[in-house]
Amino acid sequence: MTAVTGTIRNGVNTDTMFATLDLIKTQPELARFQFRATNRWIDGAHNRSTIKGFYAAGGEDTTRTDEFELDAGEPAILLGIDTGPNPAEYLLHALAACLTTSIVYVAAARKVELTSVESTLTGDIDVRGALGVDPEPRNGFERIGVSFRVTGNAPEEKLREVVERAKARSAVYDMVTNGVPVAVEVATD
Amino acid sequence: MTAVTGTIRNGVNTDTMFATLDLIKTQPELARFQFRATNRWIDGAHNRSTIKGFYAAGGEDTTRTDEFELDAGEPAILLGIDTGPNPAEYLLHALAACLTTSIVYVAAARKVELTSVESTLTGDIDVRGALGVDPEPRNGFERIGVSFRVTGNAPEEKLREVVERAKARSAVYDMVTNGVPVAVEVATD
Repeated sequence: MTAVTGTIRNGVNTDTMFATLDLIKTQPELARFQFRATNRWIDGAHNRSTIKGFYAAGGEDTTRTDEFELDAGEPAILLGIDTGPNPAEYLLHALAACLTTSIVYVAAARKVELTSVESTLTGDIDVRGALGVDPEPRNGFERIGVSFRVTGNAPEEKLREVVERAKARSAVYDMVTNGVPVAVEVATD
Repeated sequence: MTAVTGTIRNGVNTDTMFATLDLIKTQPELARFQFRATNRWIDGAHNRSTIKGFYAAGGEDTTRTDEFELDAGEPAILLGIDTGPNPAEYLLHALAACLTTSIVYVAAARKVELTSVESTLTGDIDVRGALGVDPEPRNGFERIGVSFRVTGNAPEEKLREVVERAKARSAVYDMVTNGVPVAVEVATD
């Protein structure tokens, strides 16, 4: 290791990580971020989000060079033509991705070298709610199941502690389990 | 219109839609769906979900021919190399996509022909929570703002009613605002 390249563990530069944490500790105002997505309806269940700009650490980000495009859809049974995963599937992906990255970062900080992190997520839903057929079932998933397989150069107990800490810190796990206030504005011209 | 092609409004076959709703009303057990995502860590903040199979209407779906792959990442300031939108941005997309599809379907059912549905979503977050620097800020977004612009062949009041009904029926809006029970299992071998 040299001061220039830093220590890379699990693909994470831990020198940069600890420097970032120290900076935010001394200047907490730098911790204010805002992420964004812009969405446009195309046809039927097909719509597309564009994601690029965000606010971070006291200013608008200028490092992202390309925008990301995400296409949503529905399968035939939900009246679409499979133009992309459906919104509820995207939510499962968001949760899987956030827990996984949290596991990888926590492991890097705790000197655990991971060899694999795999997960399968399931969401059970009674679509009578979202389709407006019956007011009783909730609109969203009744429950989400997450099954992780995590391997690395640490005893089982330490790997389980890493997953627990990741759950306790994951942004999307917090939002999906606890909910977030959402304010919707509408313009019609 | 013919009985074969059905009435298409906003890209939605409303004959199929009403037939589906009638079927689920008489056989509510067909409303039980399960969606899934499988995720695999690649390196650092880069992980990928694969989405294909789901359970619907009494059996495993066989209509989806291709699997969807979604890559997640983080920007440099969050220790990644922009291999994809980050998990919190994916959550914003899931919410935008679900509200938009709900608007399109509700409008189709209510004989409103839409000309455009656009939205911008913002999520404000103090990253001290997710980074574990300070236990006080929550890990996820403190609030999400959704700004819709909806146009179509209906008076403003009717367009606003469509958006209200879509909010009241959206699966992801329900989950993001109210939360969902999430059960996490871990294997380490």
